Amino acid sequence: MIKKYSNATLSEVVDALCEESSYQAVYHMPEHDWPMPSLEVLNEVVERLRSVLFPGYFGNSEIRPETMSYHIGGSLDVVYRLLVEQIMRGRCFFCDGEKQECGKCEEEARELATQFLATLPEIRRLLATDVRAAYVGDPASKSPGETIFCYPSITALTHHRIAHELYKLGVDLIPRIIGEMAHSKTGIDIHPGATIGEHFFIDHGTGTVIGETCVIGRNVRLYQGVTLGAKSFPEDESGKLIKGIARHPIVEDDVTVYSGATILGRVTIGKGATVGGNVWVTGDVEPGARITQQK
Amino acid sequence: MIKKYSNATLSEVVDALCEESSYQAVYHMPEHDWPMPSLEVLNEVVERLRSVLFPGYFGNSEIRPETMSYHIGGSLDVVYRLLVEQIMRGRCFFCDGEKQECGKCEEEARELATQFLATLPEIRRLLATDVRAAYVGDPASKSPGETIFCYPSITALTHHRIAHELYKLGVDLIPRIIGEMAHSKTGIDIHPGATIGEHFFIDHGTGTVIGETCVIGRNVRLYQGVTLGAKSFPEDESGKLIKGIARHPIVEDDVTVYSGATILGRVTIGKGATVGGNVWVTGDVEPGARITQQK
Amino acid sequence: MIKKYSNATLSEVVDALCEESSYQAVYHMPEHDWPMPSLEVLNEVVERLRSVLFPGYFGNSEIRPETMSYHIGGSLDVVYRLLVEQIMRGRCFFCDGEKQECGKCEEEARELATQFLATLPEIRRLLATDVRAAYVGDPASKSPGETIFCYPSITALTHHRIAHELYKLGVDLIPRIIGEMAHSKTGIDIHPGATIGEHFFIDHGTGTVIGETCVIGRNVRLYQGVTLGAKSFPEDESGKLIKGIARHPIVEDDVTVYSGATILGRVTIGKGATVGGNVWVTGDVEPGARITQQK
Amino acid sequence: MIKKYSNATLSEVVDALCEESSYQAVYHMPEHDWPMPSLEVLNEVVERLRSVLFPGYFGNSEIRPETMSYHIGGSLDVVYRLLVEQIMRGRCFFCDGEKQECGKCEEEARELATQFLATLPEIRRLLATDVRAAYVGDPASKSPGETIFCYPSITALTHHRIAHELYKLGVDLIPRIIGEMAHSKTGIDIHPGATIGEHFFIDHGTGTVIGETCVIGRNVRLYQGVTLGAKSFPEDESGKLIKGIARHPIVEDDVTVYSGATILGRVTIGKGATVGGNVWVTGDVEPGARITQQK
Amino acid sequence: MIKKYSNATLSEVVDALCEESSYQAVYHMPEHDWPMPSLEVLNEVVERLRSVLFPGYFGNSEIRPETMSYHIGGSLDVVYRLLVEQIMRGRCFFCDGEKQECGKCEEEARELATQFLATLPEIRRLLATDVRAAYVGDPASKSPGETIFCYPSITALTHHRIAHELYKLGVDLIPRIIGEMAHSKTGIDIHPGATIGEHFFIDHGTGTVIGETCVIGRNVRLYQGVTLGAKSFPEDESGKLIKGIARHPIVEDDVTVYSGATILGRVTIGKGATVGGNVWVTGDVEPGARITQQK
Amino acid sequence: MIKKYSNATLSEVVDALCEESSYQAVYHMPEHDWPMPSLEVLNEVVERLRSVLFPGYFGNSEIRPETMSYHIGGSLDVVYRLLVEQIMRGRCFFCDGEKQECGKCEEEARELATQFLATLPEIRRLLATDVRAAYVGDPASKSPGETIFCYPSITALTHHRIAHELYKLGVDLIPRIIGEMAHSKTGIDIHPGATIGEHFFIDHGTGTVIGETCVIGRNVRLYQGVTLGAKSFPEDESGKLIKGIARHPIVEDDVTVYSGATILGRVTIGKGATVGGNVWVTGDVEPGARITQQK
Repeated sequence: MIKKYSNATLSEVVDALCEESSYQAVYHMPEHDWPMPSLEVLNEVVERLRSVLFPGYFGNSEIRPETMSYHIGGSLDVVYRLLVEQIMRGRCFFCDGEKQECGKCEEEARELATQFLATLPEIRRLLATDVRAAYVGDPASKSPGETIFCYPSITALTHHRIAHELYKLGVDLIPRIIGEMAHSKTGIDIHPGATIGEHFFIDHGTGTVIGETCVIGRNVRLYQGVTLGAKSFPEDESGKLIKGIARHPIVEDDVTVYSGATILGRVTIGKGATVGGNVWVTGDVEPGARITQQK
Repeated sequence: MIKKYSNATLSEVVDALCEESSYQAVYHMPEHDWPMPSLEVLNEVVERLRSVLFPGYFGNSEIRPETMSYHIGGSLDVVYRLLVEQIMRGRCFFCDGEKQECGKCEEEARELATQFLATLPEIRRLLATDVRAAYVGDPASKSPGETIFCYPSITALTHHRIAHELYKLGVDLIPRIIGEMAHSKTGIDIHPGATIGEHFFIDHGTGTVIGETCVIGRNVRLYQGVTLGAKSFPEDESGKLIKGIARHPIVEDDVTVYSGATILGRVTIGKGATVGGNVWVTGDVEPGARITQQK
Repeated sequence: MIKKYSNATLSEVVDALCEESSYQAVYHMPEHDWPMPSLEVLNEVVERLRSVLFPGYFGNSEIRPETMSYHIGGSLDVVYRLLVEQIMRGRCFFCDGEKQECGKCEEEARELATQFLATLPEIRRLLATDVRAAYVGDPASKSPGETIFCYPSITALTHHRIAHELYKLGVDLIPRIIGEMAHSKTGIDIHPGATIGEHFFIDHGTGTVIGETCVIGRNVRLYQGVTLGAKSFPEDESGKLIKGIARHPIVEDDVTVYSGATILGRVTIGKGATVGGNVWVTGDVEPGARITQQK
Repeated sequence: MIKKYSNATLSEVVDALCEESSYQAVYHMPEHDWPMPSLEVLNEVVERLRSVLFPGYFGNSEIRPETMSYHIGGSLDVVYRLLVEQIMRGRCFFCDGEKQECGKCEEEARELATQFLATLPEIRRLLATDVRAAYVGDPASKSPGETIFCYPSITALTHHRIAHELYKLGVDLIPRIIGEMAHSKTGIDIHPGATIGEHFFIDHGTGTVIGETCVIGRNVRLYQGVTLGAKSFPEDESGKLIKGIARHPIVEDDVTVYSGATILGRVTIGKGATVGGNVWVTGDVEPGARITQQK
Repeated sequence: MIKKYSNATLSEVVDALCEESSYQAVYHMPEHDWPMPSLEVLNEVVERLRSVLFPGYFGNSEIRPETMSYHIGGSLDVVYRLLVEQIMRGRCFFCDGEKQECGKCEEEARELATQFLATLPEIRRLLATDVRAAYVGDPASKSPGETIFCYPSITALTHHRIAHELYKLGVDLIPRIIGEMAHSKTGIDIHPGATIGEHFFIDHGTGTVIGETCVIGRNVRLYQGVTLGAKSFPEDESGKLIKGIARHPIVEDDVTVYSGATILGRVTIGKGATVGGNVWVTGDVEPGARITQQK
Repeated sequence: MIKKYSNATLSEVVDALCEESSYQAVYHMPEHDWPMPSLEVLNEVVERLRSVLFPGYFGNSEIRPETMSYHIGGSLDVVYRLLVEQIMRGRCFFCDGEKQECGKCEEEARELATQFLATLPEIRRLLATDVRAAYVGDPASKSPGETIFCYPSITALTHHRIAHELYKLGVDLIPRIIGEMAHSKTGIDIHPGATIGEHFFIDHGTGTVIGETCVIGRNVRLYQGVTLGAKSFPEDESGKLIKGIARHPIVEDDVTVYSGATILGRVTIGKGATVGGNVWVTGDVEPGARITQQK
């Protein structure tokens, strides 16, 4: 096992990589010395929230009503502390160091985490409707509990509904990270900015994309490979993309979109409409209409 | 690092989450105090089975014929024990506590695990044909061994052929969990109920979906983004989905389905047929036919 | 917890699995007793390289210019050692034991690892252009750093640009493993043989496939579910696939391919062309052309 | 790395080790298939109890009075469940399978765990006096908190006071295991049967031994290397040791025993006595006496 | 596995443990919300320092002179950062919140960590003499390297020489923790305050105790079970121990103390003296004298 | 969390530590690039051997006679492979690179590991007598199994009897490491060279030392703090210790040595003798004699 190599090469490579011209575009040095957000800690945050939202399914799987408050209280106290630090890290990541002092920053992070905790009962209420939607919408499911424990749709929506509340509170970076965790695990890519009504179900889900400014109503069902995307990206006079404008579809209540369909731009899919598989839609769809691929 | 927050808020949130009206739809309390199946243990079960099915590729990578029986025997003895407990947990998950006593339940779990072990030689025989199919079907592969070690198709089929045998034995929940593990890892979503013949290959695979009642023949090849799904879900008189009826395609021997194609309903794709990319099929296809997208 | 089972069954199963006829097609016994490459070690290699390529974003997130050379030098020294062993394992995996002695094999592995290290500054330069492409190409992104830390496109390209250099050096098996790691995590399947120019971006990415002999120019943008695949696989006279011939598309500079599009065969998509969503292309596309699905 | 060896040797060794005559004296096969107690789980039990007994010093180190009940309640609920199973395992270890049914055994384990929990306030009260004793008794200590966090004496007494309550309840094997954990970590060997009054301190502690039937009063201080042992072991008529009779010293209140002293047999060290270093004592010591080594 | 218990009991125990009268003497709530020092992090600090002090023996065991600066530099940069935080935690542990602001506290912690790093070359120089002493002093040792890798004496002295420098700098709590780590592992209890000259060796070591104000010369050898302790603890007028006064032995150069010997008080063991096994010494010993146990 | 420090200091410290004069006495660079033995791997080796020697007590705690050969065979196959590499590392540690080629070195390591495996039945036979000795010798023990699972004596002897066989085979360094593992865990320090007869028991054990050339007969019992050491270390003409000569006691059958006793030099403690606590012995003791401390 003689593993020698040219030390000259190594030091040359190190020198090349440590030249400022090499690293300047890919190096992160925050203004205030906070490290990057931790994927490991954020994963713990989401796992603890999952155990709080679905008691008995995740985390301590033998929780009983009489002791539920101990477990939920303890988990949320930990979540609060972890989240405050991650919120500060996310904020520091974008900080230009000019607007405000760090002390105020911490105070705001505490306020944001507190406000987030207060949304948990509503997050759980929405997820309970999503569980119902998954159970009644899939002939292969045997019980609502099975969808909680196994279905990618519930995994993706648990992440999304958490991330969306953080997004609405203006938390930086963290919502996106939480969304990408679910994307990696389920293949479902929901931008944390998307607004999604209750009783939502994505069957199978791999490859489905829901863009930042989507507005989805109640009782909507999607399948795998569906894109709710932007059609074009308006640029400003200097040729830079204008960020943040509404550019993704509005999907009204009771709509179904089958696998592989692509809906682009700020179009409206009317209440109760059905969009067939592999169909390409760039205009409005009437309420109750059925759009299918021509053959 | 002063991380105080309003304790009032925390206790209010905890109280809200511990009200029965909040948790009743998302809380799991089994009849007989068995915890939920453990994803970690089931992962160990699958990893041990993988090392048994493909000796030398996984697990102890220096196994020799003379000592093979020690390693395989030891692994299967552990698998047996772990599986008995997981089968009981899965069964308890759906148990309404009325049909039978727990003692009988354990006896049956042991019987199921024993029967499952007996299917391993056949599972390996089928996987060996899948390895062959991946090697001969992909110009980029350099040896059959490379497909065993690297290809998502073999990963997904190892999970599926294990899950399918458990499904056929009537094991609850566990087959679905094993299927979703592969779905998360490979983007290939095969319902454990699907019947798949030998010499099967899915190239790339991300986004491919194979439904519960599919019947796939020998020597079939699929690509990424293929859907073998249901067309409609018959409801009973009360409007509830009728579960369990045959609703997915029959794909006969020697069929190839290219990427993004969607085949829906209990249709038959005849022997030797080819379905082109992005094509949408909801009717039978003649043996030997070539269906392509119109342009 | 009485978990007995028929010992007869276990020993029968073990005996069946240890028969040569059962295991011969799925058993790996290398000529020279090197174990299989280790996914765990290769993951460490990639994570260390990621921290070297993007200092401060990954690994030690508090790195400063003054101490950068310590961290980068230390990481690369470890990477070198780990990589030499994995290269030898990959080589041994395909070795027929006839061509050469093992000693020479190790010498070559050291040489290959050294040559690989020397490509890192160029890998980083290319990735910096990819980061730029992701930032300017996505209206939802708030800073280049966010794309480094969160975007599947950058994850996939980091893996690919590493794997591609190893592939060009003729390293066996390892490039494919590194590519599949990214495939599993992001749903983006890029064969390590693919040649990809600078300033490349894949938005969302799940289900996108880029084949072994693809040649992609500068400033190309793809979306999710895009296939750059082979159309047919020429066979030799004996009916075996001819491996290694150019069979995937050439995509010239400034091309955009929207979600779900499929481009097959050694066709050329001309400079500046746009291929619409779900479109199926099997012929050349003129420079500047816009191909869309007929409706 | 050619690592072959004579397979004949291996199988011969295995065969020899699997002969009943070889393994019968060193093989454990319980009557009722419960596994051995788990050192890992018992370590978790003790760590959780330590965090409950000394809130803020161990476990979650940022606990506040307002949320203390969540953390303590959650930890004790977990401890209860883990302990019930370990108590059953310990009981099964000694079970001859004749006395009673397993069902009753579980009921009793639950009862024992419940009774143990009820002793925690008293265990904490005693430990608080031990902390005080360590602080006032060691000129090198700077605060009571330092003794909680760093001193082997407090570690050993935390284990002992837990183990002793379990011992008094008649729990099998588990108290001994908890005692040996502390022995391994601190070098202090206290048998769980020993009765120890409040305000107890062992300085340094390595090598100190306190036997099963010792009775130690209040405000006693020992040093390292002290033995409170048995002098002789009475045998019954058949020559077997008579187990369980009082055979270790009684040490009354306010006694100090210096390092290396050995006190053997059911002798009484009277109130306020001092036993010098390396002294050998096998008879009673008067209250207030000072025994030292002759020189 | 029916594991119910009286919920009444649990809540009563929790309530009892959450009463202020129960927890006040054993609860840690720091003034400024810094958590307790982390044993895990301090262990990492010591392990990294060990790999820096003995390159090639610990940590990366294939370090070469050409790349040594990368590894040592990287490790020390990490050690610095970890140590600053642990120093602050230790300081906060004793802080009464009155003397100064936290900001100044952090500045001082950085200064202390910087000063500590500067002592490492001297720590290594001393340890190199200890290695020599262990090798020449033990007929069973085969090479100096063996003593570095295996001998408790070197382990204990590595911890001690690190802890002693931190102690001299006035770092709170951390030195004691590092000393107790070695105590637990080796059974050798050296207070971080003890001053120990070069070329020091403790053979076997279990049970040896070296007190806070000991002053040990060059070339001293101890055996297991040796106590260099305090004889009496002067109290102030109020009966409280006076902390910090010189109360342990001075051991001059070239002294040997055999196993089990006890030397108490501020006595001087003169240059070249030998103290026999199990001997009890409470007065000065002449240079060159041989003290043995009377028989 | 602003953690800056003088970079000048760091680089100065690094430079000082990387000067050859600083590191030369404490740096390990093997001749043939084998790394140091791995404590982690050796711990796995011992744990696997423990599970083989005491089936059902350690490792897989539900082993049954019918499947015992699978578990024992699998474990020993792994132990063999791990041990061959560790033996080579240990050998390389002392290698001066002159005597022989590495290839031969590996062959010999394989031979040594094979020979070691063949001693396992005898090791187990001896340990079974030690278990018996612990059970009958301690009134506090309730069953032989309890001593296997809990007693430091059995832990230390398991390590010793393994280490001693490796020592007799001439394996370098590894036996010492295995001995020190037990020393750290139990406080019992037995040199792997010591010869110990069957039916041996050390009660409590902390601080007991047994030297390299000790010869201990059958049915011997020691207590804590006993030293069986060397009296003087003969030097050669150049003043260097002569290594390897017989210098520790011979303890004949049926001897008991009580706590704290010290026996030094190549003396003989005759059959059936009893040495009292804290006694100091440097001459022969008659068979059947009772030596006690004078008072």
